[in-house]
Amino acid sequence: VEAWLARVSAAAGVRGVARFGILAPVNLILLDPEDFTAPGCARLLDRRARHVRKILHGAPGAELRVGLVGDRIGTGRIVAMDRASVELRVELHADPPPPSAIRLVLALPRPPVLRRLLAAVTAFGVKRIALLDTARVERSFWQSSQLDQARVEAHLRCGLEQARDTMLPEVTLHRRFTAFLERALPVWLAEAPGVVGHPGAEARCAARPGGPTTLIVGPEGGLLPDEIAALERAGVVPISLGARALSVESAVMVLLGRLGS
Amino acid sequence: VEAWLARVSAAAGVRGVARFGILAPVNLILLDPEDFTAPGCARLLDRRARHVRKILHGAPGAELRVGLVGDRIGTGRIVAMDRASVELRVELHADPPPPSAIRLVLALPRPPVLRRLLAAVTAFGVKRIALLDTARVERSFWQSSQLDQARVEAHLRCGLEQARDTMLPEVTLHRRFTAFLERALPVWLAEAPGVVGHPGAEARCAARPGGPTTLIVGPEGGLLPDEIAALERAGVVPISLGARALSVESAVMVLLGRLGS
Repeated sequence: VEAWLARVSAAAGVRGVARFGILAPVNLILLDPEDFTAPGCARLLDRRARHVRKILHGAPGAELRVGLVGDRIGTGRIVAMDRASVELRVELHADPPPPSAIRLVLALPRPPVLRRLLAAVTAFGVKRIALLDTARVERSFWQSSQLDQARVEAHLRCGLEQARDTMLPEVTLHRRFTAFLERALPVWLAEAPGVVGHPGAEARCAARPGGPTTLIVGPEGGLLPDEIAALERAGVVPISLGARALSVESAVMVLLGRLGS
Repeated sequence: VEAWLARVSAAAGVRGVARFGILAPVNLILLDPEDFTAPGCARLLDRRARHVRKILHGAPGAELRVGLVGDRIGTGRIVAMDRASVELRVELHADPPPPSAIRLVLALPRPPVLRRLLAAVTAFGVKRIALLDTARVERSFWQSSQLDQARVEAHLRCGLEQARDTMLPEVTLHRRFTAFLERALPVWLAEAPGVVGHPGAEARCAARPGGPTTLIVGPEGGLLPDEIAALERAGVVPISLGARALSVESAVMVLLGRLGS
């Protein structure tokens, strides 16, 4: 795996340091305010220091793409490093990429799919994610350690690092379908019209990139007819991707491609 | 995992047999010609028999969605079963879903991504997949056991079972980029104009579902400028998905959503 990371890294993160040969497997190193020891000076101590040393083979003078969580992106030049830490001279000179206008309401998927989707939809630029209980969501999924706040944030950060973004999405958990429909959803729909992926829908999902949209995707087994009906009463339009049944993971990404900017 | 499969199955495969409670986690059971013992009679012996017994909790009378590889789809009613085999009365009465007009040329990804993407793009309906070497494809990926013909076909079959399809895609391996460009690609492009996902491209990927398209997606680190230039000389148009760097896996599915029917 490390060999692969090193290879991938040859393409990605560090610029202007061809002499180091091997560059970043993440596209951006995320900094937190507490990483700063003085204005423009950051010290990496944790996995990111190991990452810079072992994967990037960073050395003083190398320039890394960095971003400050919730803030701008820019470059970090390595000014010093030892086995435990990396000192960066940081310049933040650009805005992160614009967010997607799509919000995602996702029936809580099984943990490995959740993990991958949190990172993937974050990389796509989705800034609002609701994880919802529906009749066909397995109860045990709600006990998964993947739902721990720290784990969720780690997956979101992976997505940000992939897409060179710094703005963490907001993720909320909704264990009561009806309460979500009655309280949270109307607020979302007032700002972004809703569609729900539904294989039985008459309307085929049109490609209309760019507009604010609340995208709802059910669980692997689908939403119940009652659940679809309740969503329709709330003003959500069922849309289909055609005759094929896609996995939840594929359906989310294909629908983002179809609807998203 | 089995609990999850059983749960998912409640939504998917078997119809009209609510008394059995638990239905198919795959959306279709793929049959091969050699499974038929007489016209309309098939016998499952292998993992599919175990699957029907253990996951579907099938019993005589239950109706399963089935399809014959390369042929039509329909139903299989369980007429007998024991610990080792399941006998089905098969009726094939419908065509599989229409194929996608998109062909995919994919820089060979690392094995786990290859596995998931083969299944996902097959489920989407892609019928022609070329796996290509490029400068940034790790040499070791070509030695992966995931490229064994039987493994590849297993992943494709997963995609067919997901999407209730029976038509296996054709997958070809191209270990010489230049040879592919000079010999195979012109034939593809004559039938389906080519686009290549390229973060630096000026043209943003327009949503234009439905048309025949040859979609080219580079490796995790991107295609080299020389490789992009060679593709452009061949008539391929670079397209971008915007400022965000997506993983290969996400990029393929998002581009299929954007371009695909």
